[in-house]
Amino acid sequence: MHSTFSLLSSLVVCLLLALPTDGYDPLITRDNRKPIVSTEFGRVESVEVYDGSEKEPLNLQFFTLEPSSLLLPLLVEADMVFFVQTGSGRVSWVEKGDITHMDIARGDVYRLRSGSVFYVQSKTTATGEKLRLNALFTRRDYEDTLDEFIGTYANLSDVVLGFDNKVLQASFKISEELIKEIKSRKKPQMIVPAVLKEKTEEDSNWKLGILEALVGGGSHEERSNKKRKPFNVYKKEPDFKNPNGWTLTVTRKDFPPLKGTNVGVFMVNLTKGSMVGPHWNPRATEIAIVTHGQGMVNIVCPSKKSQCPRTSFKVKEGDIFMVPKFHPMSQMSFSNESLSFMGFTTMAKKNHPQFIAGKLSVLNTLDPDIVAEALNLPKSSVQELLSCEVRAEIR
Amino acid sequence: MHSTFSLLSSLVVCLLLALPTDGYDPLITRDNRKPIVSTEFGRVESVEVYDGSEKEPLNLQFFTLEPSSLLLPLLVEADMVFFVQTGSGRVSWVEKGDITHMDIARGDVYRLRSGSVFYVQSKTTATGEKLRLNALFTRRDYEDTLDEFIGTYANLSDVVLGFDNKVLQASFKISEELIKEIKSRKKPQMIVPAVLKEKTEEDSNWKLGILEALVGGGSHEERSNKKRKPFNVYKKEPDFKNPNGWTLTVTRKDFPPLKGTNVGVFMVNLTKGSMVGPHWNPRATEIAIVTHGQGMVNIVCPSKKSQCPRTSFKVKEGDIFMVPKFHPMSQMSFSNESLSFMGFTTMAKKNHPQFIAGKLSVLNTLDPDIVAEALNLPKSSVQELLSCEVRAEIR
Amino acid sequence: MHSTFSLLSSLVVCLLLALPTDGYDPLITRDNRKPIVSTEFGRVESVEVYDGSEKEPLNLQFFTLEPSSLLLPLLVEADMVFFVQTGSGRVSWVEKGDITHMDIARGDVYRLRSGSVFYVQSKTTATGEKLRLNALFTRRDYEDTLDEFIGTYANLSDVVLGFDNKVLQASFKISEELIKEIKSRKKPQMIVPAVLKEKTEEDSNWKLGILEALVGGGSHEERSNKKRKPFNVYKKEPDFKNPNGWTLTVTRKDFPPLKGTNVGVFMVNLTKGSMVGPHWNPRATEIAIVTHGQGMVNIVCPSKKSQCPRTSFKVKEGDIFMVPKFHPMSQMSFSNESLSFMGFTTMAKKNHPQFIAGKLSVLNTLDPDIVAEALNLPKSSVQELLSCEVRAEIR
Repeated sequence: MHSTFSLLSSLVVCLLLALPTDGYDPLITRDNRKPIVSTEFGRVESVEVYDGSEKEPLNLQFFTLEPSSLLLPLLVEADMVFFVQTGSGRVSWVEKGDITHMDIARGDVYRLRSGSVFYVQSKTTATGEKLRLNALFTRRDYEDTLDEFIGTYANLSDVVLGFDNKVLQASFKISEELIKEIKSRKKPQMIVPAVLKEKTEEDSNWKLGILEALVGGGSHEERSNKKRKPFNVYKKEPDFKNPNGWTLTVTRKDFPPLKGTNVGVFMVNLTKGSMVGPHWNPRATEIAIVTHGQGMVNIVCPSKKSQCPRTSFKVKEGDIFMVPKFHPMSQMSFSNESLSFMGFTTMAKKNHPQFIAGKLSVLNTLDPDIVAEALNLPKSSVQELLSCEVRAEIR
Repeated sequence: MHSTFSLLSSLVVCLLLALPTDGYDPLITRDNRKPIVSTEFGRVESVEVYDGSEKEPLNLQFFTLEPSSLLLPLLVEADMVFFVQTGSGRVSWVEKGDITHMDIARGDVYRLRSGSVFYVQSKTTATGEKLRLNALFTRRDYEDTLDEFIGTYANLSDVVLGFDNKVLQASFKISEELIKEIKSRKKPQMIVPAVLKEKTEEDSNWKLGILEALVGGGSHEERSNKKRKPFNVYKKEPDFKNPNGWTLTVTRKDFPPLKGTNVGVFMVNLTKGSMVGPHWNPRATEIAIVTHGQGMVNIVCPSKKSQCPRTSFKVKEGDIFMVPKFHPMSQMSFSNESLSFMGFTTMAKKNHPQFIAGKLSVLNTLDPDIVAEALNLPKSSVQELLSCEVRAEIR
Repeated sequence: MHSTFSLLSSLVVCLLLALPTDGYDPLITRDNRKPIVSTEFGRVESVEVYDGSEKEPLNLQFFTLEPSSLLLPLLVEADMVFFVQTGSGRVSWVEKGDITHMDIARGDVYRLRSGSVFYVQSKTTATGEKLRLNALFTRRDYEDTLDEFIGTYANLSDVVLGFDNKVLQASFKISEELIKEIKSRKKPQMIVPAVLKEKTEEDSNWKLGILEALVGGGSHEERSNKKRKPFNVYKKEPDFKNPNGWTLTVTRKDFPPLKGTNVGVFMVNLTKGSMVGPHWNPRATEIAIVTHGQGMVNIVCPSKKSQCPRTSFKVKEGDIFMVPKFHPMSQMSFSNESLSFMGFTTMAKKNHPQFIAGKLSVLNTLDPDIVAEALNLPKSSVQELLSCEVRAEIR
C-alpha cells in the first residue's frame, strides 16, 4: 500500500515538474488572483497565465492606487505593457540615465521597457476614482524567453541595500554608522501616500527647462522631441462598430512604443443581449480581462479536444479568460447587462480574425458543394446556413 | 519488491516525461506510420519525427487520394510544405477571405500557410494514378515553436459545429430545429468521392472574372498578378548530375513561397550501384522519404556517439530516415536496383554540404601534414587518400 | 521504509530531470573544470555554465598549448568565440571549402563559425609562454538553440573514419587493405607536437599567391580583401579608465565577426584596493574568468531571492563567476593584490550598465523625495547618499 502511495506521489510530482500544465483551462476567476500587497493606499494582485507558447507563464498584474498614492520605484525585469482601466495619474521612469514623466488616464496604453526603474503616482479626481492599471509582463523577444533567474520586478530598496556594508560604504563614501542605520530601517510598503505635489505636464517641462538651462546644452530640445504619449483606446475609431457594440485592437503598427514586443491590446464592448460572432484568430492568443458586466464565453478546441476542460462558461468583472490561437470562440452579453472586456494578444501583427458565419465567413468563401460535403448536409440546409449575408463581427 | 517496482515505474514515467527522446533513431520504417484515416477513397498516415531542435516533434503526413476523390476542408494550424509524389489534382485554400485554386502534378512543391482552410481534389488520369502528397507541418518561426495547445489541423465540421446550439442559432440566424438536425448528422469521413466537376484553370479564372465583373472593382487584376504556381522539381536543373544520378534542392531562395519557413525540399536519384559520397550538412537537418527502390544508409555520430543506436541500415520505398546536421552520412543503391528519395530540410538557407572525399573535400583543403597527424597515418597513406581528384558528390 | 526511499529517489530523479538546475550558483572554482584531455603538449578543460536563458548550458572551454604544439583539426558544431589569454600562435580553419590562416596573440578575440574545421598551432616565444585560449561555444541564433543531437565539436578522425569500410573504399577509391590499416591505427591525442614549420603571414600569402597564380583566376585578390584579423583588447581605448583600473567591452558593433552571435567579450582590470561600483546590466548576462589575482564579488538577487545561495565570495585566478542580467553586482580587489578578469556576455547589443552610486546613478536621477520614501530614510540621510558626485564605475 505504501509503495502504491509512493508510486502515485512520485507520479504526481513528476507530472507537476515535467508538464507546465496538464490541460488548458481558459478561465481564471477574480478570486484566483494572488495578492502581492494590500495597504490602505492600494493593492497589487498577480495572475500567471500559461499560454502554451512559452516555457514560462505570462505574468499579469493588477495595480490599484487610491487617489493621491504612490507606487514606490520598481526595477522592471521584463517589458510591461499596461492599460489604465480607471482613474488618472502620472508614471515616471528612468531609462538609460534619463527620467521621463507621463500623465496617464482611463483608456491609456503604454509599454515600459525591461530595465526601467519606474514609479506611479495617482491623482485626486472629483469622482474619487482609483487609478487601476492592468499590466502584462513579457519577455522582449526570443533572446529573452527562457530566463529563469529573472523575475518580474524588484523593489529599489532591495536593489540598493542588498549589497554588503563594505561595498555600500565604499560606493557612497558614507560612514559605517549611516550604512548601519539605513539598513536597520523598516522596509517600506510598496504603496504609500503621495509625496510629490501634483504637477501638470507644463510645470514639469518648465522646471526641466530651467534645470537644463542651468546645466547648459541643447538636450532639452532633443528630449522634447521624443516626448512620450500613451495611446488612448477611447480616442481611436473602432475596427468594427454597430448598435450592438464595438471592437478595437492596438498593435505595434498603430502604436510604435509596442514595437519590439509581440503584444497587442484589444477592447470589446457589447450592449445587452449581443454577441461577438464565432471566429478564430490565426496568429494571436488572447488574454482578456472583464472590465464591466457579465456574459458567456464559448470556446471550441477542434484539434486537441482532450485539452479543453471547459468550453462554455460565465465570466464577470475581474475574471480573466484566455483563448489560444486557432481556437474558435464567441462571447455574449446577457439580455439584462452589457459586457466589456479588454485584453492582451501575443503576436500582435497581421492577425486576421476569421469569422465562421455571415458575409465574410470562411463558409461563404467555399463552394457550397464543398460545404455540404464537409458538414454532411443536404444542399437546402447549406443554402439556409449561407443565406445570412450581413457582416457578423457583432450581432 | 513492490517498492522496487514503484521506483522503477516512476523512474520510467519521469524519463518519458522529462526527455522527449532517449536517443536518436534515424530510421522510421513504412509500417511505423500511424494511420489517421483509411477509406475506399484514400488514406492519411502520420509520422512524428523528433529532430532535436524543437520541443515538439515535426509532423510528417502522407495523403493518398484515389482518382476523383476529395480531401474535405481542413484548417491548418501549422505551415504545411508538401511534395506531390504521384498523380495530379487541384488544391484550393481560403486565406484572409480569398479562395485560391491551384493545379498540382507529380514533382510539385508548395507551402500552405498556417490559418488557411484547404481541400484537395484528385484528378482521373489515363494511368489511374493516385494523388499522393508528402507533407511536413512546421511552425512558422520562433514565435510559434512551443505551442502545445495547437495541433496540426482541424476538420471544418468540428470548427463550425463545436459551438453551443444557442451561439450557432444566433450566428447563422437559423431555427433551433435546423441546428439540431445539422448537429445530429453523421460526421463525414475525411476523404470522400469528388463532388466538383474537374475544372481547368482557365474555367475557374473565367468564372472568377465573371463574378468579379458583377461585384465590380479591380480586384481581379490584383489577384491575377499574384497567381500561385507550385515549384516542380523535375523542371529545374539538378544541382549535381552525372551518369550515376542527380541531386536537387529547393530553398526559399529558389522558391519565394517557402519564405518565412525554415524548410527546404530536396530530391536524390541514384542509378544502380551508385552512392552519394560521405558528407555532412553544417546547417540543415534532413528528413528523407524513400520514393522508389532500396538502398543502404550509413551515418556517423562523431560528437555524441551514445545517441546513435543505428549507423548502417537498409531503407526501402516508404521508409523515412532523418540525419541531423553535422552528422556525416552516405547513401547507396544496391547493384540491382535504383534508389530515389525526396525529403525536407530544416534551416533551408546557406547550407554547404561538406564532402569528405574527392576534389572538393575538407581533407584536400587541409595541409597533408595536418591530415597525417589527424588520422595518425604515414604520409604515403595520406597521399593515396588524397589522390582521388574527382568530384565525389555521386559516384 | 523502502517505499519512502523509493519516493525520495524518484523525487530526486524527477528534480534532476525536470529542472536543469535547482538554484543559481554564481561561482565555479578552477578545480571544478572538467578535464577533456591532458598530454605533455597541452590540455583542454571544460565547464558548463547554465545561464538560465537556454535549455542547454553554455559550454566554456580552456585550451592550453605548450610552445610549438598542435591542436588537431576539430569540426565545431557551435559558434566558438575565443580570447587569447597568453602566448601566440596561428589558427587555421576551413569554411565552405576555403582555408584561412590567422596569427593570434595575447588579447585577441575572434569567432569561428559552426561548421568550420579548425586547428591551432602555438609558437615558440622567448618567454616560453603557453598559448591559452578561453572559448565559449554558443548556438548561432534561435534556430539553433535546442539541438540535443549536436555536441560542441568532433575530431576529424572520428568524422572521416566513422564510415563503414565499404563506403570509405568506394569514396576514396582505395584498397580494402589500406582502409583496414588506416582504421587499425591508434587514434591520435587531441594535442601533439607541431608539425608545420612556423610561417610568417607573409610566407603564407606568398605561397597562396603562387598557388593561385598556377591555378589561375582572380580569387587571390578577393580573398585578400576579406583577410581576417582578430580584435585585440589591449589595442582599444578602454570604455572607462582611471588610476584605479579600466574596463572594456567588445560587441558585434565594435567587431563585425561577432555579428550573428549574441556574444560579447569584456575585460576588467583593478589595481590594488579598488572596486567596480555596484551596478547591474539590463541586457547582458556576464560569464567572467579571473585571469590574474584575487578579489571579492558581491551579488544581489533582488527579485528571486531564493535562487541566490551565494552573494559574497572570493575569486582567484582560473575561477569562473556568472552574473545574470538585472542582478546588481560589485567586484573588488584586495588591498595587497590587483585583480583582472575577462569574460563573455550574452546579448551583446545595447547594454547600458546602470550604476547605483555616484553622479550617473539611478538614485541621483530620481527625485530625492521619492528616494527617501523608497528607502524609508529621513531627507538628511538621502542628501548624504546622493552627495557623492563623482562617476562611480571604478573607485
